[in-house]
Amino acid sequence: MASREIYFCVLLAFAGILVSCDPVEQGELHVIHKRQAPAERPSCQTGAAVPETRVDTTTRLQAIRTLFPGVPGGAIHAYIVPSVDAHQSEYPSYYDLRRGYISGFEGSAGTAVILTNSAALWTDGRYHLEADENLDCNWTFMKQGLPGVPSISDWLVDQLKTTPGARVGASPFLMNARTWKSYSEKFAKSGIAMVEVANDLVDQIWTSGRPAQPNTPINELPMEYAGKSWDSKIGDVRGKMNAKGAAAYIVTSLDETAWLFNLRASDIAYNPFFISYAIVERNRVRLYILNHATKLTQEPTDAATTRKLYEHLNTGMGGSCASSTGSCVEVLAYTSNGIVAAVADIASNSSNKVWVSLLCNQAIYSAIPEAQRIHGKSAIALMKSKKNIVERAGMQASHIRDAVALINFLERLEREVKAGQPWTEVKAAVELKKERFKQELNRGLSFPTIAGSGSNGAIIHYRPTNVTDKQITTSDMFLLDSGGQYLDGTTDVTRTLHFGQPSDYEKECYTRVLMGHIDLALLKWPKGLYGREIDAIARAPLWEAGLRYLHGTGHGIGAFLSVHEGPGRISLSHNVNPSDEALEEHMYFSDEPGYYEDGQFGIRLETIVTIELAQTAHPFPNSVFLGFKPVTLVPYEPNLINFDMLGPKQIKWLNDYHKRVEQEVGPKLSGAALQWVKARTLSISNQSTSSATTYAPTALLMMGAAVLSVMSLR
Amino acid sequence: MASREIYFCVLLAFAGILVSCDPVEQGELHVIHKRQAPAERPSCQTGAAVPETRVDTTTRLQAIRTLFPGVPGGAIHAYIVPSVDAHQSEYPSYYDLRRGYISGFEGSAGTAVILTNSAALWTDGRYHLEADENLDCNWTFMKQGLPGVPSISDWLVDQLKTTPGARVGASPFLMNARTWKSYSEKFAKSGIAMVEVANDLVDQIWTSGRPAQPNTPINELPMEYAGKSWDSKIGDVRGKMNAKGAAAYIVTSLDETAWLFNLRASDIAYNPFFISYAIVERNRVRLYILNHATKLTQEPTDAATTRKLYEHLNTGMGGSCASSTGSCVEVLAYTSNGIVAAVADIASNSSNKVWVSLLCNQAIYSAIPEAQRIHGKSAIALMKSKKNIVERAGMQASHIRDAVALINFLERLEREVKAGQPWTEVKAAVELKKERFKQELNRGLSFPTIAGSGSNGAIIHYRPTNVTDKQITTSDMFLLDSGGQYLDGTTDVTRTLHFGQPSDYEKECYTRVLMGHIDLALLKWPKGLYGREIDAIARAPLWEAGLRYLHGTGHGIGAFLSVHEGPGRISLSHNVNPSDEALEEHMYFSDEPGYYEDGQFGIRLETIVTIELAQTAHPFPNSVFLGFKPVTLVPYEPNLINFDMLGPKQIKWLNDYHKRVEQEVGPKLSGAALQWVKARTLSISNQSTSSATTYAPTALLMMGAAVLSVMSLR
Repeated sequence: MASREIYFCVLLAFAGILVSCDPVEQGELHVIHKRQAPAERPSCQTGAAVPETRVDTTTRLQAIRTLFPGVPGGAIHAYIVPSVDAHQSEYPSYYDLRRGYISGFEGSAGTAVILTNSAALWTDGRYHLEADENLDCNWTFMKQGLPGVPSISDWLVDQLKTTPGARVGASPFLMNARTWKSYSEKFAKSGIAMVEVANDLVDQIWTSGRPAQPNTPINELPMEYAGKSWDSKIGDVRGKMNAKGAAAYIVTSLDETAWLFNLRASDIAYNPFFISYAIVERNRVRLYILNHATKLTQEPTDAATTRKLYEHLNTGMGGSCASSTGSCVEVLAYTSNGIVAAVADIASNSSNKVWVSLLCNQAIYSAIPEAQRIHGKSAIALMKSKKNIVERAGMQASHIRDAVALINFLERLEREVKAGQPWTEVKAAVELKKERFKQELNRGLSFPTIAGSGSNGAIIHYRPTNVTDKQITTSDMFLLDSGGQYLDGTTDVTRTLHFGQPSDYEKECYTRVLMGHIDLALLKWPKGLYGREIDAIARAPLWEAGLRYLHGTGHGIGAFLSVHEGPGRISLSHNVNPSDEALEEHMYFSDEPGYYEDGQFGIRLETIVTIELAQTAHPFPNSVFLGFKPVTLVPYEPNLINFDMLGPKQIKWLNDYHKRVEQEVGPKLSGAALQWVKARTLSISNQSTSSATTYAPTALLMMGAAVLSVMSLR
Repeated sequence: MASREIYFCVLLAFAGILVSCDPVEQGELHVIHKRQAPAERPSCQTGAAVPETRVDTTTRLQAIRTLFPGVPGGAIHAYIVPSVDAHQSEYPSYYDLRRGYISGFEGSAGTAVILTNSAALWTDGRYHLEADENLDCNWTFMKQGLPGVPSISDWLVDQLKTTPGARVGASPFLMNARTWKSYSEKFAKSGIAMVEVANDLVDQIWTSGRPAQPNTPINELPMEYAGKSWDSKIGDVRGKMNAKGAAAYIVTSLDETAWLFNLRASDIAYNPFFISYAIVERNRVRLYILNHATKLTQEPTDAATTRKLYEHLNTGMGGSCASSTGSCVEVLAYTSNGIVAAVADIASNSSNKVWVSLLCNQAIYSAIPEAQRIHGKSAIALMKSKKNIVERAGMQASHIRDAVALINFLERLEREVKAGQPWTEVKAAVELKKERFKQELNRGLSFPTIAGSGSNGAIIHYRPTNVTDKQITTSDMFLLDSGGQYLDGTTDVTRTLHFGQPSDYEKECYTRVLMGHIDLALLKWPKGLYGREIDAIARAPLWEAGLRYLHGTGHGIGAFLSVHEGPGRISLSHNVNPSDEALEEHMYFSDEPGYYEDGQFGIRLETIVTIELAQTAHPFPNSVFLGFKPVTLVPYEPNLINFDMLGPKQIKWLNDYHKRVEQEVGPKLSGAALQWVKARTLSISNQSTSSATTYAPTALLMMGAAVLSVMSLR
């Protein structure tokens, strides 16, 4: 799935880290209608049709505003509703979609701000169309990232400038401490107070129709997939704590609790997490789990798991530990007050330093006196991102099974589309899902499948719906971005296909995306660089022709965890993300350049790669070189490659890659799917023409072209 | 000249911007002996030979320490002596080499810290050898940038931890405000005060043998070279001031006063500056010049100048203006107190906001109340870096004349070395200087020539001296990095040569440097990127073989100004320089990758390039693409190129470049130099062999090889 450069920008801006989201790689494509008060929105003008997906928020807004005067400590004049949960999750549970409820817009990114007589919603370019449909005419629409759109804080300062003693409220659990601080400091300059509203106002009004809090079974991730015991991981965390002189580390991110304790659940769609916090101290570990009491003694629901939670955590059936040896995890009820009180209790000993990550929410952060607070990078994110030897084997094995599913599906799709059978994007997503579910150790998808035919492929985060569903034909490109969750790994792969005769321009675009994709995969670099320092390598072949893509080149990916995982990423960014880490061995990233032609087609090629030590011809003193090795093993689309544009190193990479596909995935295929792979993985030889004036080597698709011609006649 | 990635790192660290200077591209080459107390330094141990260049600082240190108790406001316990002048110049005048005087180490970067019973000096990897020779055994030597070396502030905190009420002094003129603030804040946490010592202690003790303050004539830079009048530039500055609501902009950098007023002098070696400050207000401009009285009516010493200073600035002979129209510049005496008082006077009107750049010194900065201070990017640096049409013509013309000088020299050098005549590095530097001085509009060199034969070429900032001077032979590589100042431009060019038979390995290294050099020159990119985002392009061909260079790829360059000019640069950097600007049209940068094999040879290829709008095959909505155009026009060394390694696009670039050299420089050459250029600029054609297994295209040096063979027989 395309990495969220835009998302990260928004997240950072929201976190108060950027002054502005630089539009360079985020596009300046739609500079009209960028900031629309209700009366200015075309869909709110007299006679305009009301979109079917529009939500009437009038009653909800009235209800929340009636709570403004009664906020403890004094009336507030504005209330901020972010999109995240208390764990700052990119994807919260349905229960936690507060911003979706109050605004009607449920996209994964956005912030709602409600004043006494107005309301505004900010979201980024991915959602500009969707949000306009969802938001009713109570809302000013702020197209975040476009020039001229005010930041949330600037807008609030402007709106409240004539309100003496203005107070802006927000839940301290739903905003990270950095953002909170930046708002507070900015508002203070204009005499506006930032107020912690302990009892979230949306929680108070969202009384009917609210989804229940998630309550999915927790299963142990067995050692054969996790590769490292939870107490060994705790030991590593304690080592880092000691180096910093920290008495406690507070685990607030859901992928960190899942990883740390080798536990998985399904509290959040596509993300195998359970709602939780943890506190690691030198001789004590506490894990706060939503609905902990039933979870502790629940029978495992996953066949791979044989132990109940209390057995896995060496705890008693009630969740308590007999001794404080640290090799037992106390399991406690998950409550907002509980975690804050526990943190405050640790900090009540003034010699205790408490470490919290940059994503820690304001409620926990403010429970620690400043002098005792260590606020910085996560203790866990870096170690989690460097997969251990068992996880590495699992990532490769799960990617091979995932390739089997995708190849089986693609062979059938191509055959049936060419035979004139009706296929749509939605059908493709459904049928592909079935193939994944057939695979051993599959535990669902890692995100909703992006299947875009023709012009729908140009919408970077498109998800097919019954309204938008398009036919897959022999005359359109088809972009397919999908992934699975497996007990032994998480996958994410994009291939773009054409089952007919693409135009020369379509082939040029695809080939340039492929060239960047390969050039990045071929790169070797001295250890110590950050992804942002090598990202341009993947873009240069597109730039050469005046083309570009407005998203990042690569995101990290978890091992049966989140499909988007920090702390590293491969993305142009003018500003440094403070949680970013340098590229290291055994990290996993997507390599996914693309090109999108509005209204026409979209191309993206995404292969998961892992970082390994690179062999180099010469040594350099005290230097270690790193390089990428592909993990995803799915053939490319020869129909869309102009081989004349590829250089010899690119052709060699492609041949080596396809050879691996044939050798590693081939044995797990049979019949038509195996033939399909064999035809697409034949070695390409390049034969250069000699000419004093023409330098482009001519590459010939030899056997492969012949075989494919035959196939296309079927 | 190689860009100062190391230098910038140190500057930034010094400015308190970095927590640490990341050693990734600065090498971890010499990790032993990185922090040496006097007793640990090998050259300070019993029986060790005392280096000839060592300076006895015992008396100086005694003298400065006697001043500690009498500092106004209370005794100090430590004193910091930075390397810069009050203008934070990279290269100060001889008068301003305070750190050189107190420590004995005169390299361009370094900081001395003196305590009552110890002293320490920090400098970066360029100077680790030199500083150890210069520093006597009163000094602890801190090898900045290496792991484990404490920062200046960390070390001071540690040294003073047992001194209650400790006070650290420094001149507020010799430290920029950001650094001052970072020291103050850090020290405050340990109960240490940072104290402004208005009357610098080194100034008080450096009474004999101190060079006079510089006093070189100021000449007008005529419009035919400047291209824009000073009052038009003032108008632009005022436009920026208005946009920020600033009543005044304080010009503190010497290249900014020189550029703003179209004036040049020679107060600093190789830099055509005069010691000065300026204050631009909405209706008033003041220029504070050292020795202003004599300067005002002095006859021009440059033949190109016909007006005296007071005429150029529309001022009276006494330096005062009849009216405050803003088209007259008041010329005033340069005194430390004068500028601070003037700034404080402007700020005494509380409605006046005063803008100072990030390089503004603490003395001026602290004269402005915080609420009235605009502290950010320079108002001038960006506009100065984007050359106007006249400057662009001058930059190209001066580079062509500079190429004539270098080519005349190189032809003679090659001929005489091959004939067995004795040539050394020093002789090369002397003779090349003569060639430059012959060129029209030449005004000296832009930096001391770096001429490194064989192993000396591996020392990145090597300057030949009588001690180190080596023969230039037919069996060694020869690295030549040099540049000139011209009325119409500043040049900086590096070529690496071999007059005999280089080894295959030497050719591979040279060719990989050339490949990166060309790949960067070929790059097109969407406008808006920073140099740090494209730097890897120049390194990738070296990285491919496990090779690297530990300096930046490109620095900005002025037009008859400094050879190193901000605000942009092309350099990997993990941390963002807050003064950095995105790459824009008409900026000029060096493109100078290299490779250095310790004790063997050094390779660097440096070509000045300018940024222009790039033509691309396809349009992208709302996107503009940029690319580089070479300005330096000097042939490469075919003797060192393995043409088989070059791709067709690289060969085309090389042919196009050499064609330009022949067409644009050729007509200004004659005789042997013209033949030398013709032989080196012949078009190379590449002819690929076709083979199923070999992909590397074979390039044949055809006519060129034949001609060169003939030449080598002479």
